[in-house]
Amino acid sequence: MGDTELMIEGRNAVIEAFRSGKTIDKLYILDGCQDGPVMTIKREARKQDAFIKYVAKERLDQLSATGKHQGVIAVTAAYEYAQVDDLFKNAEEKGEVPFFFLLDNIEDPHNLGAIIRTANLAGAHGVIIPKNRAVGLTATVARTSAGALNYTPVAKVTNLAKTMEQLKKKGLWFVCADMNAETMYNVNLTGPIGLVIGNEGNGVSRLVRETCDFSASIPMKGDIDSLNASVAAGVLAYEIVRQRMGV
Amino acid sequence: MGDTELMIEGRNAVIEAFRSGKTIDKLYILDGCQDGPVMTIKREARKQDAFIKYVAKERLDQLSATGKHQGVIAVTAAYEYAQVDDLFKNAEEKGEVPFFFLLDNIEDPHNLGAIIRTANLAGAHGVIIPKNRAVGLTATVARTSAGALNYTPVAKVTNLAKTMEQLKKKGLWFVCADMNAETMYNVNLTGPIGLVIGNEGNGVSRLVRETCDFSASIPMKGDIDSLNASVAAGVLAYEIVRQRMGV
Repeated sequence: MGDTELMIEGRNAVIEAFRSGKTIDKLYILDGCQDGPVMTIKREARKQDAFIKYVAKERLDQLSATGKHQGVIAVTAAYEYAQVDDLFKNAEEKGEVPFFFLLDNIEDPHNLGAIIRTANLAGAHGVIIPKNRAVGLTATVARTSAGALNYTPVAKVTNLAKTMEQLKKKGLWFVCADMNAETMYNVNLTGPIGLVIGNEGNGVSRLVRETCDFSASIPMKGDIDSLNASVAAGVLAYEIVRQRMGV
Repeated sequence: MGDTELMIEGRNAVIEAFRSGKTIDKLYILDGCQDGPVMTIKREARKQDAFIKYVAKERLDQLSATGKHQGVIAVTAAYEYAQVDDLFKNAEEKGEVPFFFLLDNIEDPHNLGAIIRTANLAGAHGVIIPKNRAVGLTATVARTSAGALNYTPVAKVTNLAKTMEQLKKKGLWFVCADMNAETMYNVNLTGPIGLVIGNEGNGVSRLVRETCDFSASIPMKGDIDSLNASVAAGVLAYEIVRQRMGV
């Protein structure tokens, strides 16, 4: 886990957390548990689209810091999530053409932190991440973002592909990296753009890739397959910066 | 440590390692220890320019896997280091203008691994790192390089600034990132080049910075100070790639 300081244990504490409006990143529930309070928790989780993981008692015991989890442990975000609208507001306030990052399942908190840091410095207006197995805004992410989380809004959505369809109606174009695509230098990246970054091991998922409007490749002059996810994000983001600067 | 599998413990084992020509990245010696075998080890270490760290018994006990360190623990490199000449040979064989990375004290093995990965894919001919507190080629670095260590030579030198002076005589130009410098897009990076990347926290050290021929800045459009070291390396390296491609 790493970020145990953000865990809430026990049925009442978890119900309370949901009702107070806290964002729950992940919910661990004892597999097979069906009683009243647990059903209430599941209902609240579904309202919030929190990611539920059913686990064995041993796993909960291992995660638990207090030893009193009563079959339920919730992991909260270290930072508050923004709404997708906040990203548009951010672009509007700066009088700039929208530039968002969309992260399709980044799993390593160091990568997520480094990417939020890059998003801030490349002048992106925010980051969108999915509500699933991807890492959320943990304390490690906050730390590796080097303060960027205080400035760059991060929104969490249930379904990345669906969100992309909605954002297309607002004029956004989506680009993802694809090693077989045209080199990024020859792709026009100056319009309202959503830069899609794939998972560390598996890249961009099929549905998200198919929802992209175009793809671009980073020139690969070496012997191995791919750049580290946060490095690839940086290289692509700065190609957008360069084109927008008109260099 | 993380990479305990590469530790050699005990006086005879360490002396043997030095004599067999193994590259020792770091040597932990019990503070105050002055007897014959330890003096022999120190002498061998000085010949190899290995970094010696004098520590208390508690620290050695903590590092030790066998519990039988006898006051000496050596940490060996997971990979063999190359010579600086190997980097030139690599460029020559490919018929390309030399492009090296010089890392001024990268401390995080994940950053070092990601940078070697980037060096490979950006078509650099090798990486030069200093023999000091900087991280060496540990197993973590090998893993995070995603195989790049099998292709991209990494040389370790005693004094980075001195090596730069020698390489200048062979026609190399050195550039480092400096946020107050001209934007990278306006700096000619097409010649034989050594790209200098600074330490995660402190950037490029004074002497190395003064030895650079010119500096270039990555445009910063955000609120925080700087990119992650491996992201900055990627963005700068790909600006070199772009200019060399004549885009």
